[in-house]
Amino acid sequence: MGHLAVCGTILQTPAPGQLQILPDALVLVDADGVIETVLAPTDSDYAAEKQAAKQSGALVELPAGQCLLPGMIDLHIHAPQWLQLGTGLDVPLEDWLQRYTFPLEAKYADIAFARRSYTSLVSTLLANGTTTGVYFASIHPAATRVLADICLALGQRALVGKVAMDHPDLCPAWYRDASAAEAATETRAFVDYVHSNAGNDSGRVLPVITPRCIPACTDDLLERLGALATETGCHVQTHCSESDWEHDHVLQRHGMTDALSLRRFGLLTRRTVLAHGTFVTDADLDAVGAAGAGFAHCPLSNAYLSDAVFPARRVLDHGVHAGLGTDIAGGHDASILATCRHAVMVSRLLESGVDASLPRGQRGRPGARIEPAEAFWLATAGGGQVLDLPIGLLAPGYRFDALAVEVPGNEFDSGDVGDRFQRIVFNAGREHIRKVWVDGAAVHPA
Amino acid sequence: MGHLAVCGTILQTPAPGQLQILPDALVLVDADGVIETVLAPTDSDYAAEKQAAKQSGALVELPAGQCLLPGMIDLHIHAPQWLQLGTGLDVPLEDWLQRYTFPLEAKYADIAFARRSYTSLVSTLLANGTTTGVYFASIHPAATRVLADICLALGQRALVGKVAMDHPDLCPAWYRDASAAEAATETRAFVDYVHSNAGNDSGRVLPVITPRCIPACTDDLLERLGALATETGCHVQTHCSESDWEHDHVLQRHGMTDALSLRRFGLLTRRTVLAHGTFVTDADLDAVGAAGAGFAHCPLSNAYLSDAVFPARRVLDHGVHAGLGTDIAGGHDASILATCRHAVMVSRLLESGVDASLPRGQRGRPGARIEPAEAFWLATAGGGQVLDLPIGLLAPGYRFDALAVEVPGNEFDSGDVGDRFQRIVFNAGREHIRKVWVDGAAVHPA
Repeated sequence: MGHLAVCGTILQTPAPGQLQILPDALVLVDADGVIETVLAPTDSDYAAEKQAAKQSGALVELPAGQCLLPGMIDLHIHAPQWLQLGTGLDVPLEDWLQRYTFPLEAKYADIAFARRSYTSLVSTLLANGTTTGVYFASIHPAATRVLADICLALGQRALVGKVAMDHPDLCPAWYRDASAAEAATETRAFVDYVHSNAGNDSGRVLPVITPRCIPACTDDLLERLGALATETGCHVQTHCSESDWEHDHVLQRHGMTDALSLRRFGLLTRRTVLAHGTFVTDADLDAVGAAGAGFAHCPLSNAYLSDAVFPARRVLDHGVHAGLGTDIAGGHDASILATCRHAVMVSRLLESGVDASLPRGQRGRPGARIEPAEAFWLATAGGGQVLDLPIGLLAPGYRFDALAVEVPGNEFDSGDVGDRFQRIVFNAGREHIRKVWVDGAAVHPA
Repeated sequence: MGHLAVCGTILQTPAPGQLQILPDALVLVDADGVIETVLAPTDSDYAAEKQAAKQSGALVELPAGQCLLPGMIDLHIHAPQWLQLGTGLDVPLEDWLQRYTFPLEAKYADIAFARRSYTSLVSTLLANGTTTGVYFASIHPAATRVLADICLALGQRALVGKVAMDHPDLCPAWYRDASAAEAATETRAFVDYVHSNAGNDSGRVLPVITPRCIPACTDDLLERLGALATETGCHVQTHCSESDWEHDHVLQRHGMTDALSLRRFGLLTRRTVLAHGTFVTDADLDAVGAAGAGFAHCPLSNAYLSDAVFPARRVLDHGVHAGLGTDIAGGHDASILATCRHAVMVSRLLESGVDASLPRGQRGRPGARIEPAEAFWLATAGGGQVLDLPIGLLAPGYRFDALAVEVPGNEFDSGDVGDRFQRIVFNAGREHIRKVWVDGAAVHPA
């Protein structure tokens, strides 16, 4: 018998666009937070297992009107930018960094400040249903350790990286690594810190090698971090072909696209998360696919900082790994369910086009849309695939990272589970997320 | 001394993009719900008026961290579609009407059903801060009266119309008016019902003449409703150049655009609300501007049903009246603050373009963006201007329709009121709306 048993109707997407409905499923979770089995009411041992769990006090039964979903995976969060959420979206990316973002990130030299901000961020994300967060911290080793500690303490699955950025052309003197060597040494020390943390035996928090973006890093730094990725096998995260400026900058400096340049440095691996990818070429998709790397699609910040929309349909059709990111605070919404809606919305605008003064045939990209069940897959199983972790699906062998969600508009429920799923994707807010588990532990409400 | 006095920091936009901050303002409201005066702490009678209001029990002081905003105005709501919110957005407008929308609207022949649905809708909108709602009901006179009654009972300012639609080519036999004559007669009877309602002495609920859209109406019906608009001076609402299909349909049938055709029928007046307007021409803008009519910009449904983005920047620059609409349920979000964000977002995508495979110069419409303070103006004073009503601003002579809003992220407040305003526009949800007044009466929490 399991450590925890949860009984409720599961809605999830084992493959892009494939909605799976498991009515009144019984999920048995072992003491390590791994799903042992998912039983249907028609299974012979269902009644006995449910009764046994009830007697031992291990059973959680979802009330009518709630559904059980896999936890949300946010592949791209700039943790220190939490305090500028919803502000400063009036200038292009290159100005946004200098005017708003670097000055704010520099403040995380102050540990007490970092602790207060990161505690607010992680607890808010858990309340929003984000069971796994992939974080860029700041350049500061101490504050980055604080972020990892807070994720451990509050129970979130997290991938955390000390940001590495040393290029004097882009990074101001008051906010950059002292040298490529020091940035690499500090990154290495942070990897060791996370791996050796006494509270992290299960590896719920993982370190990520984090070159901010090619324009912010010297080639020396990229080489050192690539070597570190090869040596340690750690995850890697960076930005990739985010905007006209960023994409063109790399083309000019390296004579090739971000993805191909990252590959040269050993930074395009099975565990690499590429944020944005707005301007990816077909050759990039081939390279990213061959490496088994994946994209963090950040649809809201597409509208503010990317100059175009990530071609999610094209990437899915290429079979390249992808998930979703809020891009806090280039995106102003801290919810991955909201990010699903934005992903559907921008895909529809990419499909239809936006400029009514053009003839229909010249306006958009026919067939570019993604459906709600595809956005949901990106937010869950797709994100798990990008990270090479057994998360994003409620199935045997996966971690029990899950949400109990009240279906919006439940008082007028038609009984159609497909409608319920759409209402969750399009309308569920923080108030509908009633319970959140990570690794089988209840982490929200606190 | 007023009937009500509210003290707090006002954030509002008297003109598009012009953010006005009135710290610790004291708003005195008379017994009819009209603002008598707005005093600043530096005004000589501020202290005495505040003290007098306190002694008489009329004073409401906003706690630190809350701001006072004008109420939100939603110019386009399909009330019966409330129950399909967040579902059925997978097909084009013409199919969406036949497959999902008309069958649902037809159910409002059942009064008990209508009462339950409309009560849920209106109370939700009030909780979301919508102090004025402009409603398309269904074709049913009885259910439309129910909607007006519910708005009266729950305290919302509302403009309500019985939908008129009689064209046998678009409207199914089981959901259309029996004849143009009957539709006009029923519209006339509904106007009289609202005007003579004993609970509506102040005229807080107004009737609207509501030809659904040109494709759904015969010319006979459009003529009769135009005559009724001329005779009664009532508001008019209809759809206008919403999508490729709708715009082209009218061009083919009438040899001219929606706006110009509506003008011929006497349906383009100072009190006409044109939903969408996605494909408006410059000649349309001249005609709409000359008539003093206005647009309900519905940015979210632009992405699903309109095939392009409403050119809000161009319309503002033309000086033509405009406000915002949720377009429930062609839009899946029932909040006008969320609609502000969507309006900013789609304007940015119109500006940048969406298709990364095009060169930057061919991708978007430079200069098409609107700023948060312009979206907020559309949601408040702009909507009031469209409706020709003294709402959307907290100033002498205006109705006291207002919200007390907790500023999101307040625990990290920088003290910058501009940042606070942006955080309200980009991040405030239902949980931040603490108190709602219409005509000086507290209507939420109930």
